[in-house]
Amino acid sequence: MTEPEREAAEAMRSLWASAGADPFVIDGRRLAPEAVTALLRPYLTDERFARIEAVLDGRTYTVATVVEGLVDTGNVSAVMRSAEAFGFQPFHIITGGGRFKRSKRTTQGSEKWLDVHVWRSPDEGAAFLREAGYTLVATHLDASATPIDTLDFTRKTALIFGNERDGVSDRMLELADRRCIIPTPGFVESLNISVAAAVSLYHAYRDRLARQGFHGDLDAEARARLRARFFMKAVKNAERILRRAAQSGHLP
Amino acid sequence: MTEPEREAAEAMRSLWASAGADPFVIDGRRLAPEAVTALLRPYLTDERFARIEAVLDGRTYTVATVVEGLVDTGNVSAVMRSAEAFGFQPFHIITGGGRFKRSKRTTQGSEKWLDVHVWRSPDEGAAFLREAGYTLVATHLDASATPIDTLDFTRKTALIFGNERDGVSDRMLELADRRCIIPTPGFVESLNISVAAAVSLYHAYRDRLARQGFHGDLDAEARARLRARFFMKAVKNAERILRRAAQSGHLP
Repeated sequence: MTEPEREAAEAMRSLWASAGADPFVIDGRRLAPEAVTALLRPYLTDERFARIEAVLDGRTYTVATVVEGLVDTGNVSAVMRSAEAFGFQPFHIITGGGRFKRSKRTTQGSEKWLDVHVWRSPDEGAAFLREAGYTLVATHLDASATPIDTLDFTRKTALIFGNERDGVSDRMLELADRRCIIPTPGFVESLNISVAAAVSLYHAYRDRLARQGFHGDLDAEARARLRARFFMKAVKNAERILRRAAQSGHLP
Repeated sequence: MTEPEREAAEAMRSLWASAGADPFVIDGRRLAPEAVTALLRPYLTDERFARIEAVLDGRTYTVATVVEGLVDTGNVSAVMRSAEAFGFQPFHIITGGGRFKRSKRTTQGSEKWLDVHVWRSPDEGAAFLREAGYTLVATHLDASATPIDTLDFTRKTALIFGNERDGVSDRMLELADRRCIIPTPGFVESLNISVAAAVSLYHAYRDRLARQGFHGDLDAEARARLRARFFMKAVKNAERILRRAAQSGHLP
């Protein structure tokens, strides 16, 4: 990786890190998620609060979305929108050192509700996901691929999508534990990447409902953290409010 | 509708009609589908033939795709590609008098394997579909909409999708028998039209498999007709071959 590429990757990483970083450190002091929630709750309408709780009900870290390659950034943004819509919180972008520019129109703001991770290479992303206990499944059309409905999405699974032009990279295919396809009975064998991802994520969502009767599965701690983060995104000037409370010593 | 609009609609209609028209009339004489099939079979490899039979196995007219409005033609083309991939043969485009220009890159040639109908108005399209026995279901996000998984896609259903900007038109909503939504547990409530259509069609495909154990349901006559049409699309210079046979009197 050249120096400019490295710098670009770092810049992207810090851009995206804002979505996933611990939002509870104010002036060097870490606030408990419950403190953040208590301080910000008065600024939310009951309706908004209920909506956030409903979204938390349907949220999971069990399935992670991974998008590789960046030929068409509109596609990455579209996948992000689908992942958010179906409640899949972890979202990984593997840049391969290239540039990534999100399309605000297409994400519909979904990036602010997700944990977005940016990796410079398949190896880096795969190592992180494997360490976190995910089975790596590449969506890929070949003879060794199994139909997506043979997978059990109640287990930790990272679903990897390639780019429109080249599909999943050779290196990522090497790193992946399995390959899967969406069976299509028609002549058209390959779906647009944003369509393939949406269908796969919808399938995973429905598979989880069918197997265990529920989709969202946050434990109490993850839920408290995510609630605090959602509050910070939903309340205008949230950081200023928290900072003021921290400085005045009025913390719950 | 103004005169230029009417002319544009007619031109489109004849453009698309080529996909759905009876392909068996050669020099005013109608060939039986079986004759077409027998004459063209020698020009197909066994592999190509097997592929066509496999696609016929997974083909249905029970669910029709309807796309209304033409703001983004790339989206209409993407929906066409998904409909073909999941085996839904009838495809209806309601132009509202506007212009439609297909995006060849996005359809991936899928239009030649579908029955494409073009209508000038919601009334025209709805009347045709109702006459053909379809229940009209508009995909539409509102309080009266039922979740898509409450529908039974083993019954004749026309799934109607609006355009990206305005959704399904008011007139089409009046004409529709029901409204349905794809439930999304996240903050993002509306999916991109091509994504929403792909997910809905995938859902319909899976619903049919789950309820009855099979998806394709062509009867012998429909299958013979569609086989002949597919052969005509798959064989180069098919018309010339058929014309020569008809002129020489060598018809099976």
